[in-house]
This record gives sequence, C-alpha cells and structure tokens, in this order.
Amino acid sequence: MGENTDNFSFLEPNTIAVVGASNDPQKRGYQAIERLKQDGFPLSKIYPINPKNSEICGLKAYASVLDVGEAIDLALVCTPAKTVPQVVEDCGKVGIPCCVVVSAGFAEEGDIGKAIENAMLENAKKSNVRIIGPNTNGMFNTHKNVNLLGLDNVPKGKVGIISQSGNILLSLVNEAVINGNVGFSTFIGVGNQSDLNISDYVEALCEDEYTACIFIYAEGFKDGKKFLSTVKKAVSKKPVMLYKSGRTQQGQIAASSHTGALAADYKMTHDVLRQAGVTVLDKTANMACIADALIKCPKANGRRVAVLTDGGGHGTITVDSLVREGMELAELSDQTVKKLQAILPPTANTMNPVDVCGQTDRDATPSAQCVEILLQDPNIDIVLITGMWGGFHIRFSSDMLESEIKAANAIIDCAQKYNKPVLMQSLYTPEQAQPLMILREGGIPIYMHVETCVFAAKAVANYSADCKKLAKEKEYNTLNKVPKVQSLIDTVYQEKRTALLEHEGRDFLRHHNISMTNEFVIENESQINSLPEEITKQTVAVKLLSEDILHKSEAKGVFLNVKGKDEIREAYKHILQNAKSYNHDARILGVMVVPMLESGVEVILGAYRDESFGPVVMFGLGGVFVEVFEDVAFRSVPVSPIEAKAMINQIHASALLHGARNTKPIDEDALTELIFSISAIMQTYPEIKEIDLNPVIVRDDGLDIADVRIILG
Amino acid sequence: MGENTDNFSFLEPNTIAVVGASNDPQKRGYQAIERLKQDGFPLSKIYPINPKNSEICGLKAYASVLDVGEAIDLALVCTPAKTVPQVVEDCGKVGIPCCVVVSAGFAEEGDIGKAIENAMLENAKKSNVRIIGPNTNGMFNTHKNVNLLGLDNVPKGKVGIISQSGNILLSLVNEAVINGNVGFSTFIGVGNQSDLNISDYVEALCEDEYTACIFIYAEGFKDGKKFLSTVKKAVSKKPVMLYKSGRTQQGQIAASSHTGALAADYKMTHDVLRQAGVTVLDKTANMACIADALIKCPKANGRRVAVLTDGGGHGTITVDSLVREGMELAELSDQTVKKLQAILPPTANTMNPVDVCGQTDRDATPSAQCVEILLQDPNIDIVLITGMWGGFHIRFSSDMLESEIKAANAIIDCAQKYNKPVLMQSLYTPEQAQPLMILREGGIPIYMHVETCVFAAKAVANYSADCKKLAKEKEYNTLNKVPKVQSLIDTVYQEKRTALLEHEGRDFLRHHNISMTNEFVIENESQINSLPEEITKQTVAVKLLSEDILHKSEAKGVFLNVKGKDEIREAYKHILQNAKSYNHDARILGVMVVPMLESGVEVILGAYRDESFGPVVMFGLGGVFVEVFEDVAFRSVPVSPIEAKAMINQIHASALLHGARNTKPIDEDALTELIFSISAIMQTYPEIKEIDLNPVIVRDDGLDIADVRIILG
Repeated sequence: MGENTDNFSFLEPNTIAVVGASNDPQKRGYQAIERLKQDGFPLSKIYPINPKNSEICGLKAYASVLDVGEAIDLALVCTPAKTVPQVVEDCGKVGIPCCVVVSAGFAEEGDIGKAIENAMLENAKKSNVRIIGPNTNGMFNTHKNVNLLGLDNVPKGKVGIISQSGNILLSLVNEAVINGNVGFSTFIGVGNQSDLNISDYVEALCEDEYTACIFIYAEGFKDGKKFLSTVKKAVSKKPVMLYKSGRTQQGQIAASSHTGALAADYKMTHDVLRQAGVTVLDKTANMACIADALIKCPKANGRRVAVLTDGGGHGTITVDSLVREGMELAELSDQTVKKLQAILPPTANTMNPVDVCGQTDRDATPSAQCVEILLQDPNIDIVLITGMWGGFHIRFSSDMLESEIKAANAIIDCAQKYNKPVLMQSLYTPEQAQPLMILREGGIPIYMHVETCVFAAKAVANYSADCKKLAKEKEYNTLNKVPKVQSLIDTVYQEKRTALLEHEGRDFLRHHNISMTNEFVIENESQINSLPEEITKQTVAVKLLSEDILHKSEAKGVFLNVKGKDEIREAYKHILQNAKSYNHDARILGVMVVPMLESGVEVILGAYRDESFGPVVMFGLGGVFVEVFEDVAFRSVPVSPIEAKAMINQIHASALLHGARNTKPIDEDALTELIFSISAIMQTYPEIKEIDLNPVIVRDDGLDIADVRIILG
Repeated sequence: MGENTDNFSFLEPNTIAVVGASNDPQKRGYQAIERLKQDGFPLSKIYPINPKNSEICGLKAYASVLDVGEAIDLALVCTPAKTVPQVVEDCGKVGIPCCVVVSAGFAEEGDIGKAIENAMLENAKKSNVRIIGPNTNGMFNTHKNVNLLGLDNVPKGKVGIISQSGNILLSLVNEAVINGNVGFSTFIGVGNQSDLNISDYVEALCEDEYTACIFIYAEGFKDGKKFLSTVKKAVSKKPVMLYKSGRTQQGQIAASSHTGALAADYKMTHDVLRQAGVTVLDKTANMACIADALIKCPKANGRRVAVLTDGGGHGTITVDSLVREGMELAELSDQTVKKLQAILPPTANTMNPVDVCGQTDRDATPSAQCVEILLQDPNIDIVLITGMWGGFHIRFSSDMLESEIKAANAIIDCAQKYNKPVLMQSLYTPEQAQPLMILREGGIPIYMHVETCVFAAKAVANYSADCKKLAKEKEYNTLNKVPKVQSLIDTVYQEKRTALLEHEGRDFLRHHNISMTNEFVIENESQINSLPEEITKQTVAVKLLSEDILHKSEAKGVFLNVKGKDEIREAYKHILQNAKSYNHDARILGVMVVPMLESGVEVILGAYRDESFGPVVMFGLGGVFVEVFEDVAFRSVPVSPIEAKAMINQIHASALLHGARNTKPIDEDALTELIFSISAIMQTYPEIKEIDLNPVIVRDDGLDIADVRIILG
C-alpha cells in the first residue's frame, strides 16, 4: 500500500463531499461543513451527502455521492462503520480518489469491526480509492482552508502534524496559541492506517510547500523499515520531529489497548530513529518550541555555545542545562574577550557565560554589540541570550524601549550576517514584549524557560549534524554471497536445525573475512592424539558441539584453561558426560578445541530482525552492563562505518573503551569494521534470524570473537 | 551568627526607614517608597533618609536615622558601600534591629569591598543590628504590604522565597502570574549572607503564618551542616523546595564567579538534601506547579497512582511519565473494575489508565463518578485525571458547562471525603476554563502538561514519605570512645603521621565491634616461622605496612593467593624489595598476612568531611561503577539504619545486590549495620578525616572488609 501518493493531492482538495452531513451541531457532519464555510472554502464546492435532507447547513444536499454529478477530490465519511464499505464503493464509482473515514467501529473494536474494515479496504482497492483512517479524527490544511476537524482556533503556520492521537493535536494547538511561536500547515490523523500510513503522510508533507517542519506523534510503526527510509529522505529536505509514546512497558500496554499498534523496544526505536535523522522529542510539550528553532535557525557548524546573560542566576542555570544536554561551552578566543572587555564594565564576566553585569540596565545597545562580537568568533557555533532581555523597559524604565527595539533589529541583522543560530530565553516572553516580538518575527526564537531554549539549541545542533551525516551516506550493497556459506545454510535447513554449531558459525564469519583463531573439531577421542602441536602447547578452551544444546555453559559443556592432550582428553570425557546428563537425547557431534584468548575489554555484538524495523544491530559492554544497566546502542541495517563508530561511543560505558582505569584504548577501527561486517551479513543473508557474538574481546591491537551463535529463521 | 532571629521579626516591620531615599524614579530609594505607598503601607511610618532633601516622594525626609526620633523596625539601605558601615552604626544607636542592605560593592567585588563588609559587620555586631545582605535585591512580605523590591506585579499567596538570584525571582513571579496557580507570601534575597544566612531565613519562614511552602534558590551553602538540621525541622511543618544551581562543574564555575559561594559536588548535595526531606527541583520552571500541589494536596499513603483519561494519547503519555518518574501504576481491585464497568461503555478501558472512551463527551457526570470509585479503592493512593477535562464545553458543546461545573464540585467533595491527592492535567488549562478554576479553588491542582502533573504528584508522594520518615527518626548519639582507639590516634599524631597503618585501621574497626578476620603482622622474617597453622594452611594475602606508602598496589606491595610459610617468606622479601625501589626513604614496618576472602559482590564504603556539610558517608559498587558511572549514594552523618538501607537500594546497580545474574541476594542487614557503624565512628571521632573501605566483599551470609584506609585530619 501507499505506493501512489503522488497521483493525487489529498492535502489540497478543491471539491469536498461530506458523507453523513448533518444539521445537528453536535455532529462532525455539521461541524466540518460549518468550518469549511467559515474558513472561506467555496460554498459551491462543498457537497453535503445525506439521503434524508435536501438541504444541510444551507447548502444543497445529495442522497449519495453518485448523485452529485461533479468531480469530487475528497470525501469526508462520517456515517456508521457498517455503511462505509458501500460509501467507499460509491466513491470509487464516481472517481473520488480519497476518503477521510472518521467513523469508528472498525478493527479497533474487535473482530466484527475488523471484517468491516477489510470489506471497506477491498472496495477501496477495487476502485482505486485511497483511505485516510478509518477511526481518524480527520485532517486539515490551513493554507487551503480545508479544516475537516471542525477545530476553530488553529493558527496558520509551517508545522505539519501526523498523529495517532486526536487529543494530542488539541494539546499542541492550544500550546501554540499560548506560546504564539508556531502555527500549523496541515494535520493528518492516521487512525487505523488500513490503507495510507504514516510513511505515506511523511512523503506528502515532505512535498507540501507550506510545511517547513514535520511532527509525528506515533504509538508504534506498522512498517518501521519503510518509515525509516521514507523519513531519511524527508530529513534532507526538512526537519522531522517525532514523539514516540508507549515508551515504558506499561505505556506500551496502555497504547496498544487503544490502537493495537505494535510496540517495539523504546531504546531500539529511539536509536534507529536518530540514525535516520529524526528529531526525537522527550515530551510533546516541547514540540512548538523546538519546531520554532528548527524552522527559523540556520544550520549550526557544531555544538559550541556562547551564553550572554544579564544576570548570574540565568547564566548559571543555562550552563548547567547545556552541559547536562551534552552541548559544549565555547571557549572564547582572546580577541573576543578583549573586544568584550572594551565595552563591558570591569566587574563583568567575559568568560562564558558572558555576564553584562548591569551594563544593559540603562541602554540595551551593548547587548547587540556583544552578540556581534560572539558571532564573529570562529570558536562559537551558537549564541544563547538569557535573562530578561526585551523586558528591560518593563523592569527598569519605559524609556529603554527604543534602545531595546534598536538592539533587537541589530541582533537580527547580525544573526543573518554571520549565519549562525541565535536563540533567546527571556523571562518577559509571556508578556510578548515588543522587542521580543520583533526578534521572533526576525528569525530569533524566543523562550520563557532556559531549559526549553537549551533543548531547542540542541535540536538545531543535532539536526545540522544529521543533515551533514546523511549527505555523506552511501548506498551499502549486499555482499557477494559465498557459495560455501550458502551450502552451509542449506545443510542446516536440510538437517532441520535452526542453530549453526559453533564451528560452523566461526566458518561462516571466516568466509566473510572476519579473522578467527583456528578451532579443531574432535568428533571422537582418538582425534585428540592427532591434534597439532600449535594447539596442544597452548592453553585452550574445550567446548561442546551439540545441535540440541544451545546453552553450553548451563550444560557444563565448556572447559577453560585446558593444556596438553591429557587435559583435553579429560575435558572431552567430562563434557560428553555432562551433556548426556543434561539432555539424554541430545545429538552430540563432539567438542571444539580453541586457543584461550588474550584478555581485553569484553563487548557484546548482536543482530536480529525486528518485526517492524527489520534487521537491527546491537552493541554493548559485556555482562552486567547489558543486563542490569541496559547500556546498549542499536542501529538498523545497513550500519555505515560512521554509525558503527557512533554506536561504540554512544554507550555510557564508552569511557571504559577509551583507556579509563589505566588501560590502553581499544582498537576502535577493528571494532567498527566488525560491526559493519555483521550488518552486511544481516543484509546479505535474509535466512539469518539472529547473530550473537558474546563476548568479543577487544584489545588495543585488534579483537577476537570468543563465542559465536548464529540462528536461522 | 543567626542565633537571635526570634528576637525581632524582620518580615513584619511596622516602621521603615529608607536610607538613600530619592526623588529619581530610576533609583531603588524612590521605587521602594513608591511601592510602599501604593501598597498602602502607612505613610506616617515611612521615613525617607536623605541629607540633601527635606521631602522625598511627598514625605518628610530626614538627614539621618538619628534625626527621626521614632522607633524604627527596619532600615532599607541603598547608599554606596563605603557609607554603609556608618549607616549601620547609626541604626544601632537608635535601636533599629535590622538593615536590608541592597547596596553592592562588598566582598563580591574583591578585597576593598571585603574590608568594607567586615567594617559593616563589626558595627552591626557592636550595636545588635542584624543584616540582610549586603548585595541583596531586597525582600518583600505581600501580606504586610512590605515590598522593598519595588516589584509591581507580585501575586499574593503562600509561597515564601529565599533566593541567591534576583532574576530568578522575577522569572518565578512572571511564571506564577501566567499560570495563576500560586502567589507569594515573602521573598528574601540573601545577597552575601555576611550576617543572616539561608538557615536563618528558613527558620523565619517556617514560623511565618502566611507561608505554607518554602522555595530556595541556592548556588551553594556556607554552612551546609546547619542548613540540613534547620531544614529538617522546617520540613516537619511545611514543605521546603530547593533548586541548587551550579549542578555541573561548568555551572559551578559560572555560579562562583558571581557569588563566590562554595560549590560542593551536586550528587552529594542532592542526596543529603533529600535525606533532610527537601523537595529538590530539577528546574526552576517547575516551582509554581509543584508548590501548588504541595500546598493543596493531603499527604499520600504511597505512590500507587490511578489515571483517569478521556483519550488514549494523554493516558499513554501519562503512564510513560509516571513509570519514568518511579511512580507505581495502581492495580485496581476487582470491585473497582466492576463498578467502573457499570457506568462506562463496553469499549472503555477499565484497567489503569481508565479511559472513559467518549462517555463524557455529552455529560461530564460519569467522570466524577469514576473519580469517586477510584478514591474508594484502598489500592490507590493518588488519582490523576488527564486529557481535556474542564474543556468539554469548549470542545463539544457549550451546554456541557453546567454538567462540568457539577462534576467539578463533586470531584472536590470526594477528594476531601477520601482525603487523597487528586491532580488534573487538562489541555484547557491556559484558557482558565471555569470548571478548571472551580477545581483549582477547591484544592485540585490543575496543569497544562502531563509531565508537570506527574512531577507534582511525585513531589506529593515524596514529601508524604519524607514526613513519615523524619517523624520516625531518632537522635543518634556518639559512641562511647574506646580508650585503646583514642591512644592509637594519639600515637599516630605523636609520630607525625596522618594515615593509620592497615593493621591499625583494622584494630580500630574491631574495637568498635566490626568483625574482621585476624591479621598477622610480620616485622622481621623470623616471625614467619612462628605464624600459627590457622594461617599457614590457608591461602593468604601479604600486604606492605609502611606509613610512607599509601598506594600499596602501585608499589607492588600486595601479593595475593599466597600459601604456606615458604611462599609467605618469598612474598615478604619481594614486597620489601619493591617498596624500597618504589620509595628508598620510606619507613617500612613490615608486612601484614591476612586470609584471602571468599568471593562475593565488591562494594565501596567511604566517609569524609565535606567543608560545608560536615561528615558524609558514601556507598557504591566497586570498580568501574564508581569511577565511570558515578553510581554512588551519599548521606550526611548521622546515617540512620533506614537511610543506610535506602543508600543500598538507591544506586542504579542495586539489582546486582539483590540476586541479578543468578547470584544469591546479599546480606543487606550486615551491610546496613556496617554503614551505620561507619557513620557513628565519623560522628564520634572528629579526628578522622577520611575512611575508605575498598572493597568490602558482601555475600549472602555476611561480609568482609578487604582493605581499610583511615586518614586523620
């Protein structure tokens, strides 16, 4: 589904039929028509459909879409679920390309509803009708006066919304009205997504000229893989923000109880969305504030921020907030410090944060000069102004207004001149003080709270970095399949196994140029005598090989630090015994003898196929770090080398990889390459369900894989 | 300082002198008088002091406080710093008990200012004048019409503010005006705290009948120990909220550059404040919202929350937020579910969150019924209502207003009847919809955003638990000093050492009934022969004893897994050799032989004296957990057994102590007792600067201390 969104523009219908039109003000079929009328949608292009009335809301009504006799671009369907399949069929007959089905009572309400939804969908496909919904609360396009929600206070603007919740939209609209910083271009309630889905809507909003920024409220992704590729393309054109609800297990239960959407692990979802360049929000409340910055600010070269404050308190909490959010405090150049000292009093702080120290209590001019000095500094990527700027004339003296307005215009000019993001927090934001409104109009986002301002600056820095990263990204093709590997896979299937034995797994990786130490398979005791010296002189591990025992350790099937033929024989016997008593019927091939590895940092590298997002690679430190701290990084396949490196540095414990506790830094290149290879293998062999390399021992000069587990689907 | 705050009530002056009164509207000496006049402070009780004018702001002015001839309760001092010592002396002469010194140019501006501040302080002490400030932006008491800040829009209310930043107050006032949920009783800008300090102000606001909740914005604590004991007392009377700025290292630098306050480690500060029952805020922006709940809500019995929602989106993000904040989703009793099902449609979710599923779109009554059903359930401690409640008449139909008002009153009644906290998030909060304002007036806090509402509910649950905990807390006296321990300390001092040798440290602990394995000190090789069998038959550790080498491992002075006399002798020789080559001049006593310990979970227990907060105990897991993850818990001494247990369970890695990874849970009682003992030792021996037990090996049946380091001050 969702292939043909280009063929029609459901966002810009010129003629609309309202099926289930009504004269009852409580009904959607009334509210939508009245809203269309009030917003100036041409009256002659609204076709109320109601078999019982010949006039609805003062307009001529029709018994059915079949009776209209004019081309209709879109039908809003408000009639009970059971009528909808027929309505859709009728729409198809007269060539209506799209129905917005706000009726509920479909799949979300159980089996009967599901059957109705299927019937509707079948009719839709048959007659080339695309469906928004069902069970959607509708859509609007403020720039085309199409408001099918009946909402009466939507501020016009540049944010396009795609949402799985109608109430969340109401919150966002209310929020935007209060803040006055952003407005909306379009809204689409996705409903059950039985035909058109979130990815289709992203594509549409990406093309929409009135939308500068997309926000998605999602509770789950039916086809996460498609979504990631769609959104990646969109991000290169405009920022895409997303709030994923159902982030905790309990939240997922709450979410699924009302949408039935598949809820994947939040941590994984977060990571793969960030990989695709999505601006992932922590809470919906921040949406408008962050959108404002993403729309207005130029791209930032980096995350080095200079803070300009008119009071110690705000300066301090801004720095705290910046550091907590992973932004960097810019180090001002000597020249910058000198220039600042020349215009500020001797008591002023000319380090970062720069505190004007009362210098602007009579005249706002110096603040604009400071901003220009900071913007000139090549060490500074972003300037944050914080405190009570724009309200000096309220706090100190009304005759300061003039100098504040002048300074506001000067700040706008130099932000444009130096093409760097400038953001402001002012405690006088709620007063909508005139200098602040001038700044806001002139492209400087204004915030009431320090924390929101910092979130917004961070979002700008992240989006800028994402665009840079995505622009560099190449296509990653599948590997050439190795015939021996393919025949190994075939063998496993033939033997009705799903797991590769460990030596097979090692062979698999070896065939794809992943370096592995040599292992020796012992299928009967006599083979121990012919083990080469290279192995009998070393300390080795002896490990059970059995297709029926996956948890070797649990079965006491692993002996470590074994040396010499006698000890190997001893280990062999014990392991076979242990395996038998663990599972009497287990098929046992024998044991594998493999050299003990040098010590190093133990990491875990895994890959699996997520139902929604497809193949995913996971990386973390061994043991408790994964199990207790859940300190892991995820990426969707293909994982580029840049992303592989980013995974290594994303985990909290990454300091342990870079020489904490007096150890040498690990060989990051070797680990990056391994992550990249595992991703490529997942991409190449769809038969593989899961790869688990645990642990991988990484040293300063390379790495070794201590245990390999490969499971087929 | 700060002993005599009871003797005068600086918060309620009946007569005020303004020293530095002025006719210039830009000056504080003008603004303050005009504000007093406009607020209705009796004109005859305002005494402008200015040697150059006989009339200021239409009032008779005096050349000096000496000329007034009436009793003055408080002097606001706005004259330049250098004049202040004399002003204070004059104030003393005529018996003015308190000066609010808003003038700047004191210690915060360097040595000359510091000298002036000292001179002022000396005069103040001489003549029994207490000082607020200097370098404060003033104080106000809205209930007594005393507003010495000149601020013109302070809403009257119940929150008392103590702040190290004036601009932060401005932010809070603006925030409160916008939100309309709280107002202010008093404000005190602490300034340089050269006489009265934060603790004094907490005491004063604790006594103030108009203050129901105290908020402190602090950048540091001059006397943290005093503050903790003061605040602990205050918390039992009213909630104390605090935002500590300078939370990151960079933030501390920013803070200290403008206040010079001592900035302790934030993590430690946070933990000891929470121990004292302080509601520690994450951001100042949340102050008003959290204060509103703390003032209005009754105490909660626990943290089990039921969510009532009118839409899936808000229900889901509320659950996510609750879980993230460590609140519990209540499990509704079967009876509750049945009662809900009886009034809600079959599609409604009667699990938690309870979704009314459109049942309130025509009539709000069922929502009040649901609230009552939930409040009746003994499994529920707190009820959160979320969505668009109170705005049904805006969203759906204006004739719903009546039913919403009725429901609002019903909700108020049953919240009171069942005496449980009920909080509400409604997207129509900014509209100040009438039903919402009725709820707010009736004691139900109302929030725009889900997250703020959850923060507030959490604050109520925490404060309730804190009060319970503090009420149970006993006095913890110092231990009886052990003469042998005291003489050991004396010996160390006599020998001009600061560190106890390890066997001395072990003896120290043993004398205080902390169980330790026996160690054997070997001062010369021949003693090895006379080691008892109990030790020569065991595997032992051999460790260097040298007062000049603290880092034994670094000097290769520790040999582990040594067995039998021969190996011990070998180790002894090597250790002495290694020590000599590490530090040729080191005094070396010999070595200590001690049994190797059974394995278990390695934890670190430490104690030290913080410059501000005094003795502090620290607990964490060994190794990387402390160094890389900073996963540690702090408490100030005395640490009660309850707090000791809380420390163990506070760290992120606590799962590892309770049987994660197939291990047995550790002996929590033994560890609790050890933490309690170390706290008591710190309390008893002020000579001890630092104790470091690293590692302590904890098993399921007890623990052993593997290494002891005690440093004297």
